[in-house]
Amino acid sequence: MRHRLKDVAERAGVSVKTVSNVVNGHVHVRPDTRARVEEAISELNYRPNLSARHLRKGRTGVIALAVPELDIPYFAELARYVVSAAAGHGWTVLIDQTGGRREQERVLASGITGHLIDGLIISPLGLTAADLAGLDGTPMVLLGERIADGPADRVVIDNVAAAREVTDHLIRLGRRRIAAVGAQRTDEGASARLRLAGYRDALRAAGLDDDQALVASAPAWHRADGAAAMRGLLTSGVRPDAVFCFNDTLALGVLRALHEAGLRVPEDVAVAGFDDIEDGRFAIPALSTVAPDKEQIARLAVQLLADRLTGNPTLPTRHLKAPYRLHLRESTRVSRRGSVEEAR
Amino acid sequence: MRHRLKDVAERAGVSVKTVSNVVNGHVHVRPDTRARVEEAISELNYRPNLSARHLRKGRTGVIALAVPELDIPYFAELARYVVSAAAGHGWTVLIDQTGGRREQERVLASGITGHLIDGLIISPLGLTAADLAGLDGTPMVLLGERIADGPADRVVIDNVAAAREVTDHLIRLGRRRIAAVGAQRTDEGASARLRLAGYRDALRAAGLDDDQALVASAPAWHRADGAAAMRGLLTSGVRPDAVFCFNDTLALGVLRALHEAGLRVPEDVAVAGFDDIEDGRFAIPALSTVAPDKEQIARLAVQLLADRLTGNPTLPTRHLKAPYRLHLRESTRVSRRGSVEEAR
Repeated sequence: MRHRLKDVAERAGVSVKTVSNVVNGHVHVRPDTRARVEEAISELNYRPNLSARHLRKGRTGVIALAVPELDIPYFAELARYVVSAAAGHGWTVLIDQTGGRREQERVLASGITGHLIDGLIISPLGLTAADLAGLDGTPMVLLGERIADGPADRVVIDNVAAAREVTDHLIRLGRRRIAAVGAQRTDEGASARLRLAGYRDALRAAGLDDDQALVASAPAWHRADGAAAMRGLLTSGVRPDAVFCFNDTLALGVLRALHEAGLRVPEDVAVAGFDDIEDGRFAIPALSTVAPDKEQIARLAVQLLADRLTGNPTLPTRHLKAPYRLHLRESTRVSRRGSVEEAR
Repeated sequence: MRHRLKDVAERAGVSVKTVSNVVNGHVHVRPDTRARVEEAISELNYRPNLSARHLRKGRTGVIALAVPELDIPYFAELARYVVSAAAGHGWTVLIDQTGGRREQERVLASGITGHLIDGLIISPLGLTAADLAGLDGTPMVLLGERIADGPADRVVIDNVAAAREVTDHLIRLGRRRIAAVGAQRTDEGASARLRLAGYRDALRAAGLDDDQALVASAPAWHRADGAAAMRGLLTSGVRPDAVFCFNDTLALGVLRALHEAGLRVPEDVAVAGFDDIEDGRFAIPALSTVAPDKEQIARLAVQLLADRLTGNPTLPTRHLKAPYRLHLRESTRVSRRGSVEEAR
């Protein structure tokens, strides 16, 4: 005999709504109530049929989140927020790691998994506007500015303004030889291009030299790339007094390279990153960074997808902007919880 | 007109096999060849039909990897290796973040996604042997020792031996008050229980006191939990001269708490972790750790699943052990690339 939600509720002596809350993993359930419901589920060998509601609508109740790399912590943290926002719609999120490969992204975008998933949230690295033209596959939301004029809903942050702001902060510290780490070829990274533009804006506005020797490129944005770029800057004789890194993992590699070179952060070289990943908050010194509102990015992306799935198919394409903040910590000395000296 | 692989090969002037390699993201394709194939794919608007082969066999070509949390970097790094090993079987991997919730794990294990996926590799936190009994759903491979006698294939490492070895290393440094950070209730974490047992084995073998005041529990294994546990140890008057943390993220939090308390690592307190995540290699000081062979764990898990999918359904249950190594770095002073002093 196959038991139903109602049977579990009766056995546990709680409402059907409470059982549903437990099954759907809602947090606001008292621990003893949760334990009682779990015991009843176990005794009855009840299997929640989460997808029944979705299947009635010809849907699977599953959406995909496609990101280039999960071991870039920004994407892992974003994934957590997307899972959480999607749960509010009763969706399960499956995550696809594309490696930024255009082919893999094309496969997803052209709906090959259309029999598996209801919709796709994708942070593309290789995909082009041409790849998207005329697609009538899986409903899709783009994250980031890779495809500037694509025919799809999208959520972005203002990368140019954020990069300008963090570079401004380094200039206001009195730093004059500010390096940028993370430049890429134009066809590789939209974020790199926009963050470099913001960095240059700030230098120009302050009347500082836009010295090409201070710009270090990084084929990928991992710690090892940041460390290699910083070592390159140091051995080339360029001696920056500050570094703006285009993401936090690059910055963590830069911190390590500076440490190995015997340079102090922030006394000799101030360092700022981008993303506000947890690693940076616990780094020694703690990392100043641009913090995109990841929770808001996830919520907006899920909402755009929900509107696309439930609404009028001729809904116009929407581009939404999520906010960001500047978090100043020990690596640029201006910490809200005390200076570097106090922390030591 | 719908183009086929053959058409792309002709247009690009390469073999069908080469196009297939590009489409499947194999790395051993010369860059100029890859560019030519991508151009041909784009011109013909070719859409690879990766799943055709799988669909002929009544399969989707998709497997799921279920892990508790992607922002524990160990799982993100493992996911990369699973994606890579699965590509060798032509499988796409979708990743499910369970939050360690028993209900979510039950849903996956009982095959609710059976119409979506061919098989499941799961690292369970809440699931019990009872949940698995009599399941005839999705073919499944377990990671870790949570369900000791479950009726499923599994890949483990020897947690007790690894914990004993790293604690031994701290003892051989001359440390005598060695704390353990990361203990949990028995029903919460099998890894915690086994690593605590190995730590205690090593203390006993060396004739050291197994002082319960030196064991700090951590509800979760994030950086913040490690920092809080270390602060607790310090304010309680317990003054350890070494700390074995049950994972690297805990250890990174411990490093931060020691830094804030003005204690030097490793001079005042030596610190070792478990997992060998990239963050630890770049931390200041670089973190000593137990390195499970994640690539091997992934490869064995994928192979077990492949055998289960293609082989005899009455195949006996197999339990495989993956190797681990001890990586000694600056946080316990014995670095292969020079001591802490040299690095400064």
